[in-house]
Amino acid sequence: MNITILGGGGFLGRKLANRLAAEGKLGGQTISSLILFDLAAPPAPAGAAFPVHSFGGDLAELPDGVIPAGTDVVFHLAAVVSAQAEADYELGRRVNVRGTDAVIDACRKLAKPPRVVFTSSIASYGGGQSALLDDSTKQMPGGSYGAQKAAAELFLSDASRRGFMDAVSLRLPTIIVRPGRPNKAASSFISAIMREPLLGLATDLPVDDGFKVWVASPRRAVEWLIHAATMDTSAMGLDRSVNPPGMSVKIGEMLAALDTVRQGASSLINRVSDPALMKLVGTWPANFNTARASSFGFSAHEPLLDVVRAFVEDDLAPTKAERGIA
Amino acid sequence: MNITILGGGGFLGRKLANRLAAEGKLGGQTISSLILFDLAAPPAPAGAAFPVHSFGGDLAELPDGVIPAGTDVVFHLAAVVSAQAEADYELGRRVNVRGTDAVIDACRKLAKPPRVVFTSSIASYGGGQSALLDDSTKQMPGGSYGAQKAAAELFLSDASRRGFMDAVSLRLPTIIVRPGRPNKAASSFISAIMREPLLGLATDLPVDDGFKVWVASPRRAVEWLIHAATMDTSAMGLDRSVNPPGMSVKIGEMLAALDTVRQGASSLINRVSDPALMKLVGTWPANFNTARASSFGFSAHEPLLDVVRAFVEDDLAPTKAERGIA
Repeated sequence: MNITILGGGGFLGRKLANRLAAEGKLGGQTISSLILFDLAAPPAPAGAAFPVHSFGGDLAELPDGVIPAGTDVVFHLAAVVSAQAEADYELGRRVNVRGTDAVIDACRKLAKPPRVVFTSSIASYGGGQSALLDDSTKQMPGGSYGAQKAAAELFLSDASRRGFMDAVSLRLPTIIVRPGRPNKAASSFISAIMREPLLGLATDLPVDDGFKVWVASPRRAVEWLIHAATMDTSAMGLDRSVNPPGMSVKIGEMLAALDTVRQGASSLINRVSDPALMKLVGTWPANFNTARASSFGFSAHEPLLDVVRAFVEDDLAPTKAERGIA
Repeated sequence: MNITILGGGGFLGRKLANRLAAEGKLGGQTISSLILFDLAAPPAPAGAAFPVHSFGGDLAELPDGVIPAGTDVVFHLAAVVSAQAEADYELGRRVNVRGTDAVIDACRKLAKPPRVVFTSSIASYGGGQSALLDDSTKQMPGGSYGAQKAAAELFLSDASRRGFMDAVSLRLPTIIVRPGRPNKAASSFISAIMREPLLGLATDLPVDDGFKVWVASPRRAVEWLIHAATMDTSAMGLDRSVNPPGMSVKIGEMLAALDTVRQGASSLINRVSDPALMKLVGTWPANFNTARASSFGFSAHEPLLDVVRAFVEDDLAPTKAERGIA
């Protein structure tokens, strides 16, 4: 089995590469090779029993060799994230739309259509706090990132119908807890309010305790990516996109879980007002019916406390090291 | 008022240009200039009291001057149609997606965001014969043309939200009766079964009499385009697309209307089987709730018999001349 990870240097891409290296198999089949692609050539995961090749470059000008003949699975995780796509329209379009077209064109050249697993986002929806969404809900995004993701989904479903590939697009919830530093995603604060206090650092909270978010853990997201790479797609029909079973949590519930894991940690939260950010994240939905995803075998989410504990177990030490925190 | 028509050499583009030339005004404002753009520079409409400039070229490489400073309204009707976009994936993407991006980029340069009226299509939906659709229905197209149109709608809604333009996308029904020759649209037969018999020519019918189609006349489509160019868009919210009030008719009703206008004309119809075409057109919906369009002031459709009579009045003689039929 020959695998490519686009966005292989990113947070989920690295976790996925590590998991593939640790298991040596995908869907019961031995992995023969792994190709990683990102803006800069990503490092190979430790302990892989298969050759790993890394490439760096512009997704919209995808270098030859990133999706070579014989590729079985492409994980397409490369993206310009929400606040950045909002700030730089052309860059967002270039990576999120033209980049996806480049992936389609590379897949078209292969003799056998590869499985393509694409990370779309719940930011492709509007609806806001009160809406209950499912896979049949119209996508009417409140930001350019969401519009670009929704368009990319259309192109990947169409490319699957045409036989260029066999795509599964996952509309990922907001992933918590992200390690490292705050990033340019408008949802960055949702991880920051857990991560920064666990690092002993203060951080800003721009919404109130009753604000609901639709979230998933990195562990769960990697599980879903692997399931999407190996599942039977014959029941999907024309619609190759799915909302996996994340969970709806209130900010107040997140702070309570934080304090359960580290007593008093939430005292490091500064409540601030950010109307521009609120306008954007306020359009994101927080409640989904995920029956279709369950029917395809996507696994249910673990409890919130487990998510915080998994962050401490998996990501707190590397984050401290990266940020020079004792 | 300075107006540009992209696709100004096409069927609806010419009718729209003629109407603007005849009236000299749009929304009560005097027209100062008209720019026409198509693959080849379109001819100016007869009798225009304002200057008309024509350009030919590739929409994806939109020439400077097609949407110049001071443009108030852009009618974006340029497209690669359904069967052609299905046959040539790259050409469809180039014109229907990259071309729309080029329109957005040209509009972004203007000091005042222009009104952009875009012709999307009901081919952007699936659902088929039994579905009842409205403006909140998810678009899950069965062809590349529909996927490209749905993506273009997302980009135009987003560009409107960002203040690059003030867009209204009309998902046009199948337009009947198209003059001229059969074209590369998969829906071409729907006009051909009316037009060809009225020309005294035989034509093929690949579906049965009970097959329903969602249609509109050229006169009504031009009315809607003009309304979309002048309506108040403040109530549209994020969703700049609308399904105007076409009508659902059965093929058998069309043949009956044909015979009412020209007795026995339907005897020129040859019933044939075309499974590949049926697979595509069978995904197109035929029933819509258009209450949202009505709330925006889009006018209701005239009866089917009027549509056939209008074709005879407006388009039969030019079609005969074009095709050398006495």
